Amino acid sequence: MKKFVYAFREGSKEMKPLLGGKGANLAEMTRIGLPVPGGFTITTEACIEYYQQDNKIWNDLKAEMLNKLQELEEEMGKKLGDLADPLLVSVRSGAVISMPGMMDTILNLGLNDETVQGLARFSGNPKFAYDSYRRLIQMFGDVVLEIPKYKFESLLEKKKNEKNVSSDIELATEDFQALVDSYKQVVQKETKKPFPQDTHEQLLMAVEAVFKSWNNPRARIYREHNDIPHDLGTAVTVQVMVFGNMGNDSGTGVAFTRNPSTGENKLYGEFLVNAQGEDVVAGIRTPKDINEMKELLPEAYQQFTEVAQLLEKHYRDMQDIEFTVDRGKLFMLQTRTGKRTAHAAIRAMVDMVEEGLITKEEALLRLNPSDLDQLLHPTFDEQALADAKVLTKGLPASSGAASGKVCFTPEAAVKAKEAGEIVILVRNETSPEDIEGMVASAGILTAKGGMTSHAAVVARGMGKCCVSGAGELNINEQEKYFKNETDTFHEGDFISLDGNTGNVYAGNIATREARLGGYFVTIMEWADAIRTLKVRTNADTPRDSAKAVEFGAEGIGLCRTEHMFFEENRISVMRRMILSRTLEARKKALAELMPMQRQDFVEIFKVMGDRPVTIRLLDPPLHEFLPSEAKDIERLASELEVSIEQLKETVRELAEVNPMLGHRGCRLAVTYPEIYEMQVQAIMEATTILKGEGHAVIPEIMIPLIGEVKELQFVKELVLRVIKRVAEESGQTVPYMIGTMIEIPRAAITADDVARDAEFFSFGTNDLTQMTYGFSRDDAGKFIKEYRDKGILEKDPFQQIDRRGVGELMKTAVKLGKESRPDLKLGICGEHGGDPSSVEFCHMIGLDYVSCSPFRVPIARLAAAQAAIRYPS
Amino acid sequence: MKKFVYAFREGSKEMKPLLGGKGANLAEMTRIGLPVPGGFTITTEACIEYYQQDNKIWNDLKAEMLNKLQELEEEMGKKLGDLADPLLVSVRSGAVISMPGMMDTILNLGLNDETVQGLARFSGNPKFAYDSYRRLIQMFGDVVLEIPKYKFESLLEKKKNEKNVSSDIELATEDFQALVDSYKQVVQKETKKPFPQDTHEQLLMAVEAVFKSWNNPRARIYREHNDIPHDLGTAVTVQVMVFGNMGNDSGTGVAFTRNPSTGENKLYGEFLVNAQGEDVVAGIRTPKDINEMKELLPEAYQQFTEVAQLLEKHYRDMQDIEFTVDRGKLFMLQTRTGKRTAHAAIRAMVDMVEEGLITKEEALLRLNPSDLDQLLHPTFDEQALADAKVLTKGLPASSGAASGKVCFTPEAAVKAKEAGEIVILVRNETSPEDIEGMVASAGILTAKGGMTSHAAVVARGMGKCCVSGAGELNINEQEKYFKNETDTFHEGDFISLDGNTGNVYAGNIATREARLGGYFVTIMEWADAIRTLKVRTNADTPRDSAKAVEFGAEGIGLCRTEHMFFEENRISVMRRMILSRTLEARKKALAELMPMQRQDFVEIFKVMGDRPVTIRLLDPPLHEFLPSEAKDIERLASELEVSIEQLKETVRELAEVNPMLGHRGCRLAVTYPEIYEMQVQAIMEATTILKGEGHAVIPEIMIPLIGEVKELQFVKELVLRVIKRVAEESGQTVPYMIGTMIEIPRAAITADDVARDAEFFSFGTNDLTQMTYGFSRDDAGKFIKEYRDKGILEKDPFQQIDRRGVGELMKTAVKLGKESRPDLKLGICGEHGGDPSSVEFCHMIGLDYVSCSPFRVPIARLAAAQAAIRYPS
Repeated sequence: MKKFVYAFREGSKEMKPLLGGKGANLAEMTRIGLPVPGGFTITTEACIEYYQQDNKIWNDLKAEMLNKLQELEEEMGKKLGDLADPLLVSVRSGAVISMPGMMDTILNLGLNDETVQGLARFSGNPKFAYDSYRRLIQMFGDVVLEIPKYKFESLLEKKKNEKNVSSDIELATEDFQALVDSYKQVVQKETKKPFPQDTHEQLLMAVEAVFKSWNNPRARIYREHNDIPHDLGTAVTVQVMVFGNMGNDSGTGVAFTRNPSTGENKLYGEFLVNAQGEDVVAGIRTPKDINEMKELLPEAYQQFTEVAQLLEKHYRDMQDIEFTVDRGKLFMLQTRTGKRTAHAAIRAMVDMVEEGLITKEEALLRLNPSDLDQLLHPTFDEQALADAKVLTKGLPASSGAASGKVCFTPEAAVKAKEAGEIVILVRNETSPEDIEGMVASAGILTAKGGMTSHAAVVARGMGKCCVSGAGELNINEQEKYFKNETDTFHEGDFISLDGNTGNVYAGNIATREARLGGYFVTIMEWADAIRTLKVRTNADTPRDSAKAVEFGAEGIGLCRTEHMFFEENRISVMRRMILSRTLEARKKALAELMPMQRQDFVEIFKVMGDRPVTIRLLDPPLHEFLPSEAKDIERLASELEVSIEQLKETVRELAEVNPMLGHRGCRLAVTYPEIYEMQVQAIMEATTILKGEGHAVIPEIMIPLIGEVKELQFVKELVLRVIKRVAEESGQTVPYMIGTMIEIPRAAITADDVARDAEFFSFGTNDLTQMTYGFSRDDAGKFIKEYRDKGILEKDPFQQIDRRGVGELMKTAVKLGKESRPDLKLGICGEHGGDPSSVEFCHMIGLDYVSCSPFRVPIARLAAAQAAIRYPS
Repeated sequence: MKKFVYAFREGSKEMKPLLGGKGANLAEMTRIGLPVPGGFTITTEACIEYYQQDNKIWNDLKAEMLNKLQELEEEMGKKLGDLADPLLVSVRSGAVISMPGMMDTILNLGLNDETVQGLARFSGNPKFAYDSYRRLIQMFGDVVLEIPKYKFESLLEKKKNEKNVSSDIELATEDFQALVDSYKQVVQKETKKPFPQDTHEQLLMAVEAVFKSWNNPRARIYREHNDIPHDLGTAVTVQVMVFGNMGNDSGTGVAFTRNPSTGENKLYGEFLVNAQGEDVVAGIRTPKDINEMKELLPEAYQQFTEVAQLLEKHYRDMQDIEFTVDRGKLFMLQTRTGKRTAHAAIRAMVDMVEEGLITKEEALLRLNPSDLDQLLHPTFDEQALADAKVLTKGLPASSGAASGKVCFTPEAAVKAKEAGEIVILVRNETSPEDIEGMVASAGILTAKGGMTSHAAVVARGMGKCCVSGAGELNINEQEKYFKNETDTFHEGDFISLDGNTGNVYAGNIATREARLGGYFVTIMEWADAIRTLKVRTNADTPRDSAKAVEFGAEGIGLCRTEHMFFEENRISVMRRMILSRTLEARKKALAELMPMQRQDFVEIFKVMGDRPVTIRLLDPPLHEFLPSEAKDIERLASELEVSIEQLKETVRELAEVNPMLGHRGCRLAVTYPEIYEMQVQAIMEATTILKGEGHAVIPEIMIPLIGEVKELQFVKELVLRVIKRVAEESGQTVPYMIGTMIEIPRAAITADDVARDAEFFSFGTNDLTQMTYGFSRDDAGKFIKEYRDKGILEKDPFQQIDRRGVGELMKTAVKLGKESRPDLKLGICGEHGGDPSSVEFCHMIGLDYVSCSPFRVPIARLAAAQAAIRYPS
């Protein structure tokens, strides 16, 4: 029979898929002799089985759990529900990948009206005992019984007001007893049942609540946002309680072995005397720096620093550790890899390689390529910052800078984001329910909570700027305003957050480009040395090209010529071209466009030096260049001196039912060969000019939207004709390549034919995805979200290559293409070129390069290195 | 060295690819001892080589031709250009597949100013000699020198007027001499050169003209229209002249061994005494019935009837024979398979099988399935058609003939129909809102859209005549008129459509109903006995279903449920459903639609008896059911009692950039499961009702637009839920199947996954072609024509399955699908299901059935039989 429950001593860190992160690490710490309170873990397989058993805990599992509990009771010499000296346990969820949004913790389980008396007697601390009991009812009520938290919190607030005290600790035993009574009434009222007195029932209910929390909406949203599969399930860890709130020789803390914000190799964390763990996390009391523990609990501190170092060495990565000191004695409650900013990650990884702790390959694999994004984006312009007014200062919880409009609720944030606003979410504190609002926001500001509060942890994970614990602020979420000492800010007002300093500014502040430091350069050098896939950029202007080269682009993989026609002085010539009734008139307009287009290429070639530049000939349907609103048509008609009727007629004629599948790409060239002729002339003349200046440019002329090799042959013939003419006129020959996009399914299926006439393929995975799925990107947004919510699509295929379908076509094209032309050059220029999973796939199927937007070039370089490590050729 | 010229005695009918039809058959007749004037044929390979040699006749070919000419001269004892007794020859083109549009014939070659005198002397008939010479100049001038024919004809007319005679024969020798002189002046004036006197030069020029005529525009267009490859080339036949115009003991004629119009087994043809062949063909003199030859030239007649019978037996097919009687002696000039109407073909084939001449298989293979279409629809009375005026020509989108009064709106059409008028609906293009108007009309004419436009598809489904894409017309629907270049037609005017040719005529033309005789039934029985592919129909109404059963449909392969919602009493409920703001409101509207939909199925099931019926759940995007014009929106708003603004807002919200790739098919069911729930309930309740009446209906529920198996699983789950509920409510279980369309490329690529949840696949090749090519059917009409003109596409892939691309995906889907589910049922329901080449492909890849519109069912049955003969399994 399958084993579903493991005592800590039966597990190890390798069993993470089964025991979850928390359970596996508690087992590992137990195994290597660290002080861990005893316990056991119910496996992720049990959770999966639970869902298959119609959401019921089946009898065998119940028996196995109670059996393991009995072992624990024997080991501890205490029994759950024992009246004299009751065993108390915590119940925690523990997913394989750490996941806020799920039920986290129930403490003090095992207390009831009778055992609380035993605990009071045995500990000699009745106040502690009743405080613990009311905490149990509150947590159990919230997460197991789903009673709104505020129903308990308001009673606690009321009691504190009544007693005129500001913190819980100041309440007396009777106060806690009274609270226990009123909490129990809340439970009775809300659930129509008394608070469960059977401690075994408490345990089973808690375990079931953890199982259920795996599939609550918050957890699902988080998983979708973080690419975590829905079918992993969560483990449940049951652990003997130790108490940080047993007096001033007790306490609890959270620490990182290195600074999670900067990466500096120095213990970093927070500590509260006489408190339970959730007091730190919830941000109810503002904790002290971990270093202050040295004076308050010197022995425990010394022991802890040694354990922390040992854990980092043992795990060979920066650790995030939770511990409790129970009457002077240190207990380890959790260790896991520490979440960190991209800055911190890079520094820590470089340091660890230099310390000899890990290899370069390990360092590269541990970085999340997408996180590099935060390093590349602007920070506040110092000049602008100098004039800005600091309205308060909080903790620099997650680096970056953001300016935007204030929203006080996640709903408002989502709405404002949809309306195109940049949002700063302002909350007293955040909770897992706020996840969607946080996703929608550019930055997060909280009044409560520290560097390890929910807001801080989640924001860092998302790479979003966050200032937490800005305690001077008075935030009224209901009435939608916040105040500092002098001013009041309302929903919609602009504020700015600096996640590197913790400063919060009034108003909108200009930003400036990121500067990439030495650690970043080191990581990129390592990545470049290992990767085999080249990284190019999609750029249509000299400015973007220069930016991309700065970020390490090795060429242009996609230069979209259509963007060049939208500039003010060109669009009207372009329109004149489109509206031409005769070939002569069209050629005349094209002759005006040619020198401008040639100059575009000259400038881009200059920036790119001798790097390859792939130029895609005109792709969009012509109606994209014409106005559609009546008043714009009228203006254009008078500008071009044609009748409104005639212009309207042309707009109507050019309109298409499905423009995506319409008259565009090479299809335009079949109808109007003179457009591509002009473009090829501009490319070849620019190349000739650059040659004269000593540059060895090799333009790669790319013909879009090929579905049938005869289309390619037709266009290629005209391209070659122009190339020959330019060579004759200039008396110079320059090299070039002619290739095609693979973006139509039929081109992939017939790639052996296509490759006979193409020197290179560039996968246009945007269109290929549209046609393979039959999804219009412009329209599918409406239902793709629904598809993801309902689990029909794991990922948006426009963000990450669908390996099963689109990827299969790509593989077919690579295989057939290489059969016809073994030296076929292969690349990708769709949006996917900057997505790490897609980059990995491109490496796996043997492409030569990926091409992506300039800011994604570093991401692609790292992702390519990771792919090369994972799939060496 | 390759041989490019063959004497008749060196060839045979098997050498048709090399010698062309004409040359091969002359060789064959020579071989079997029939009286054929001597000659030789220059091969098709020579023609192809001519094009590769930069359109020059190279020296070796010239030498080979002159060599063969010399042999001929020796055989005949006459020489080309001989002054005393000159050899005269004809030069004719002879393609492998008979092809009007190319140069046909030059007669009397070898005459010049000197040899004409020799001919006059030797024949003792100077008038004949000069008449022959002027004929040569005229024909040579026309086809070799490209001088407009009328320049010669007008001179001949003038001469006849001058001499006051009505026919050429009445002219005297001097007249012909004078004509020769004036013809020669025309040649000098038009070509700046005299008429060539060198007889070898005449021969070379004529051969080259034949080569050139292979690529003239008329010939290219004809080949495109008839699927003849452009690279076959034409042969050239040079043959000694015989003369039917040597007096009353001479003559010329053309005859079919059977009646080409009815198929009756009786010699049928025409004959002219004292005439050359072109007199018959040109229709200058009205020829006599072949039977009259019996009296006029009894011996020659007797010999000819024997030869005709011999040729039919020898070729085992009905022959079309040209002959000449030269002073009492019969000469065979051509024999070939006789072109015939579909009626005649069917009768002749059945008769020949019964006569023991050919096998059933041969009979079936010789019929062109597409021709059957003309048998099933009304046609114009030929007599009436002769006088009719063609006002424009569009695409022959749906067969048949119709005359009626013009209406410009569906409303007007319905009204006129109710008033007892016969209506032709004239629209720029049609949309689903026009359905009722289309139903009310006898024929449909559109200015836009191709062979697969909405109008074309719907009309074919209804078996109505349709001419689409009549782009020369300017249709103004608002002001209710349309124009061609010269005339304007108003509502109520009579016009006539010929759906077989695309011709549109002014006025009312009498039509003849289709008659399906016993021969047709016999052919269909033979086809059914041989074919292995089943044939179903696409039908959405009991009427169409009944029609299809009459035509031999073995089930319904596609019942499109959306068409059922366009009826007047339903469209407003449908619209109310779409505009519902709440689930309740939507369910309420659906509950109203349910009984109507159930009744649809009950009626169709009754018609279909125990035949399978595949029902596709709702497919089109919802906006197709809403009006788009402002005034229609206003009317609908008041009808549904919603504000105009709200309705406009909804229409805007539902509008899509690329509706083809938008929110439709199963994607609707993910968002609005209740729509499919209603449909499945209607299907299952109807099935239960029929069961109660003793019918064993097995509905095949088809889920459209699947691209990912999880979509199918999602919808299947809801379908099964409803099936279970209906079974519980009725207390009865009925059988059913659940399957899917394969119309998204990704579904084909992942067909192994999809087949695990689908009991059948039906290839939706319309959409599959759209997405595989990236062609929108609604938009591609514009450039597909250009693609075909430029040779980029051989065939419109929406008419004939593209085997290389779309077909490859189909093969993949069949292979993968059968791997997962060996008994997977496979069919096709796209328009291609009625195209013979596509039917053949479906047979080859192992589908179980094809499904097509009712009127194409017989075509598919025959095509399936041909496929089974060609590719026995």
